[in-house]
Amino acid sequence: MKILLVGASGTLGNAIQKALPHHHILTAGRNSGDLRVDITDSASVQKMFEQAGRLDAIVSATGAVHFGHITATTAADFRIGLENKLLGQIDLALTGQHYLNDGGSITLTSGILSTQPIRHGANATAVNRALEGFAAAAALELQRGQRINVVSPNVLQESWEGYAPYFPGFEAVPAARAAQAFVRSVEGIANGQTLTVW
Amino acid sequence: MKILLVGASGTLGNAIQKALPHHHILTAGRNSGDLRVDITDSASVQKMFEQAGRLDAIVSATGAVHFGHITATTAADFRIGLENKLLGQIDLALTGQHYLNDGGSITLTSGILSTQPIRHGANATAVNRALEGFAAAAALELQRGQRINVVSPNVLQESWEGYAPYFPGFEAVPAARAAQAFVRSVEGIANGQTLTVW
Repeated sequence: MKILLVGASGTLGNAIQKALPHHHILTAGRNSGDLRVDITDSASVQKMFEQAGRLDAIVSATGAVHFGHITATTAADFRIGLENKLLGQIDLALTGQHYLNDGGSITLTSGILSTQPIRHGANATAVNRALEGFAAAAALELQRGQRINVVSPNVLQESWEGYAPYFPGFEAVPAARAAQAFVRSVEGIANGQTLTVW
Repeated sequence: MKILLVGASGTLGNAIQKALPHHHILTAGRNSGDLRVDITDSASVQKMFEQAGRLDAIVSATGAVHFGHITATTAADFRIGLENKLLGQIDLALTGQHYLNDGGSITLTSGILSTQPIRHGANATAVNRALEGFAAAAALELQRGQRINVVSPNVLQESWEGYAPYFPGFEAVPAARAAQAFVRSVEGIANGQTLTVW
């Protein structure tokens, strides 16, 4: 398969690339990769897909959210996650479907905060839930046998050192294990699902 | 209690107002009400709260989303629901918390599409899920005994004539019944909950 991997340079992206060795992977990212993309800019997303050409799978392991206490959060803060991790990834699906071959798949990334909120994490919880709802609904309308899923990983072991204070009692998972859920989405038949890695 | 009701002129807003007769209701809306507000404009939201003064409850029964088939939906279409029903209502909570008395409540509106997608409804499903996630997470951080809930109503009987073709097999509920969930949120102790009216 020819697979576009957005966010390829991150910890998760790297692991996903290693978990799909038998495929032709086109890497994309903001500052590195075969293709450059700013997912918050529709024109940039469109240009990336034009450069990529026809695809069998689109995988996204990218997206920023705002972290901050609810009493100090403004609408402008909250918009960060909506424009980046949420709409940025959804645009990869909305634009990408038109470049995706029959039977192709789209896999986006949410995260454990969708169902297990943490301090300062309301933006992440809202964004992750929206992504999971989007996949559930979009899967029912996609055409030509296309599928869409969301992978919801726990904190990654590789990122644990920086994140530990914010995730008390969370059981970090290896990125290589999280990557397997992306393999399941790309090579399997799941559709409209949230594949949790907890 | 002194209650700010945003979206007071709508079918649901009207029913909520009738269900809370023993309170002082300040009505707000885009084109009518005691106060005028464009919920997609943070400055307008801020101004409304300054005019309203201290409150015991904030109730929102407003918010637009985009309806359209996923294959014809663009990021610009999708942004409609994110800016209006999602961030518009979230801004009522984020800004409103600072005008809310100790023990006060915030009640937002999602809808049945959060868990039961319909044709053309992916934007609504994503937005409604995000609102429910926001309330679940924000409830854990709000201060001074403040509470937040989301009411998720089915289609309203009063709106059924126009909506019926899009909601095959849905069991419409009277607006007066949906309004009771808002009473439960305002006068009860629920916090971080999605109160379904199905």
